Amino acid sequence: MNIIEGGITAPKGFLATGEHVGVKKVKKDLAIIYSEKPALCSAVFTKNLVKAPPLWWCEKLVKEKQKIQAIVINSGNANACTGDRGYQDALAMAETLSECLHIKKESVLVTSTGVIGVYLPMDKIIPGIKETSKTLGADEKSAKRCAKAIMTTDTFRKEIAVEIEIKGKKVKLAGIAKGSGMIHPNMATMLGFITTDINISQELLDKAFKENINDSFNMITVDGETSTNDMAVILANGLAENPVVDKEDEDYEKFKTALDYITKYLAKQIVKDGEGATKFLECQIFNAKNKEEARVLCKAILNSNLVKTAFFGNDANWGRVLSAMGASGIDFDPNQVKISFKNDKGEIKLFENGLPVEFDEDFAFKILKQEEVKILIDMNRGMESITGWGCDLSFDYVKINAEYRT
Amino acid sequence: MNIIEGGITAPKGFLATGEHVGVKKVKKDLAIIYSEKPALCSAVFTKNLVKAPPLWWCEKLVKEKQKIQAIVINSGNANACTGDRGYQDALAMAETLSECLHIKKESVLVTSTGVIGVYLPMDKIIPGIKETSKTLGADEKSAKRCAKAIMTTDTFRKEIAVEIEIKGKKVKLAGIAKGSGMIHPNMATMLGFITTDINISQELLDKAFKENINDSFNMITVDGETSTNDMAVILANGLAENPVVDKEDEDYEKFKTALDYITKYLAKQIVKDGEGATKFLECQIFNAKNKEEARVLCKAILNSNLVKTAFFGNDANWGRVLSAMGASGIDFDPNQVKISFKNDKGEIKLFENGLPVEFDEDFAFKILKQEEVKILIDMNRGMESITGWGCDLSFDYVKINAEYRT
Repeated sequence: MNIIEGGITAPKGFLATGEHVGVKKVKKDLAIIYSEKPALCSAVFTKNLVKAPPLWWCEKLVKEKQKIQAIVINSGNANACTGDRGYQDALAMAETLSECLHIKKESVLVTSTGVIGVYLPMDKIIPGIKETSKTLGADEKSAKRCAKAIMTTDTFRKEIAVEIEIKGKKVKLAGIAKGSGMIHPNMATMLGFITTDINISQELLDKAFKENINDSFNMITVDGETSTNDMAVILANGLAENPVVDKEDEDYEKFKTALDYITKYLAKQIVKDGEGATKFLECQIFNAKNKEEARVLCKAILNSNLVKTAFFGNDANWGRVLSAMGASGIDFDPNQVKISFKNDKGEIKLFENGLPVEFDEDFAFKILKQEEVKILIDMNRGMESITGWGCDLSFDYVKINAEYRT
Repeated sequence: MNIIEGGITAPKGFLATGEHVGVKKVKKDLAIIYSEKPALCSAVFTKNLVKAPPLWWCEKLVKEKQKIQAIVINSGNANACTGDRGYQDALAMAETLSECLHIKKESVLVTSTGVIGVYLPMDKIIPGIKETSKTLGADEKSAKRCAKAIMTTDTFRKEIAVEIEIKGKKVKLAGIAKGSGMIHPNMATMLGFITTDINISQELLDKAFKENINDSFNMITVDGETSTNDMAVILANGLAENPVVDKEDEDYEKFKTALDYITKYLAKQIVKDGEGATKFLECQIFNAKNKEEARVLCKAILNSNLVKTAFFGNDANWGRVLSAMGASGIDFDPNQVKISFKNDKGEIKLFENGLPVEFDEDFAFKILKQEEVKILIDMNRGMESITGWGCDLSFDYVKINAEYRT
């Protein structure tokens, strides 16, 4: 597997663009991804019961196993909590783009991110889609414009592309994402778009994508909030012309490894750009009884405000970690648990055999003041492990999220 | 029911005290509550699996239905995650106080709050208990010293006393609590101690206390964290000499109303003194399908960092409220929900029939900039209601919780 240049348009047959159409004041706010050939699609959507209307449309298309040829994304307004009018607006976006590109309406996904509870400015969006669709390109600049236009308060673009070889054919995968930034009153929406030119069966595309999402995008947390608009999509257009991957063989594993790299890379980039984050936390749970237990404990730790503020303060406060585990609902014996913090400066053991381990505060501070810290938890009672990613809770998180709408 | 002076020692036969013994640098850190007559006791403990050793001892006594005659509380060190040595330290505290007061060791509850994962400084605690036990008094000053000594970073004392009449006899109830303050690396431990001279059966004391706790202390949240040391206790010594309350009659109802007043008063005081809080939030869920649904929704709203930061920013961000409800796991139809914000400046309707309601931003700001705001949620699908209390998330919460141990 090689990391390559080119962004979201690196795989064959994909074009992209991003422009400013007036939803936001100045920054780019409309992106389009287009595949020359209708692509197989797999997608996952927010588990929040309050789903934004564009997701109703996308879920319908994915359920019907429609082939997808384009995605239109606006940032600056989430078109959420907007009821039937919001749904009609989403449909109008799909319809407009389908006319511009001469493709079926049912091959156009629509997503939105931004303010919630406000109707979309359709007088800007509809002409905006028409103009923007004329600027689609397969070059790297177009890819970058696209990655830029899906951002809200993200402070940097998140994009990656890789190449693998399947039966002598070059196969490419690429992804862009936006994360836990927000414009004034808004949700920390996570969007991920992945393109690939692999030739693969729908069944294996679904399987690989679902498994990868569970261990990547679903293992990150910035503030424990689940947005109304979260969504991750993969499009596979087959233009790499490799013999179809329809068995769980070596080629499938190659694809999964590449996809795993892309989704984890993007997931970690989202956390690193978490609102106000000053520290990147990786939490590893080892030797848990089962995967579910590991997942729950990992998220309980990464979601704890007390744990997060302790890391912001460079405080080796393992007691908050253990307390967050104890409050998680998982039934375990604290006496079996081992806790340590680690990074390239070294490792400090903190808790073992039900008792605090004495440690050198200066050494602990040296480890904790780094930008990346690993929280290692050995449950000592099974074989399952999991890794999750989060960030600290800083003054800036409060500032970003408290600002009054202007 | 009359609110009266006197604090925790207002009910007949109760003495109290609080002194500095050296767990903290300067402030009071050891409190004792004493009943001249062994009292019936009812108590609730943290649901955190990682319980501090003093709670092991208290739970044992409560389970055995021991009559309780004294409570010793130290602040500054939680004696949590300290294993068997911590348990022996808690036993030594009970034993020391029992010797000083010539009572049974099994009639002494022990609680601790403060830093976790550090052994108690027993060289200070044991002589400290001996000295402090000599200063017990029934006067108001002793009561205040006691209320002060259980504080960690609480910024004010939390105490209340009331009087009711049962069959011609004056019956008193009093309570003190400490809340969501914390010393450097610590949990937001909640402790509540209630004294009463009512003559009541154990069964009805348990019933009344459990029900009241569920609607008071269990309905507040500062940061969604459950401490290793949370505990609430009531002692009833019977010295009011009213005919025993052993039926759910009018007298029982009078007692319950008084107890309800005390527990809710203390619970709200804890939230008002929440770490860094600038705003007191009351969330009312109306017309829910059942109590459990109402409880889950209420807490999901009050625990959401995005909701809390919006209130810190005086932002009428109802979308975050609805999104927190949607992510709570409760299955409901958002189209049925009504959301409004309200206080003595007026009420703004924000969401109805699945759609945003237009509102005057200036008027909304006028309501939101007040120190107290009600979040009203009408679920429109049942008969159950619940009220909970929380606070906003401010810069100071992060500051207090991020400070490195000194």
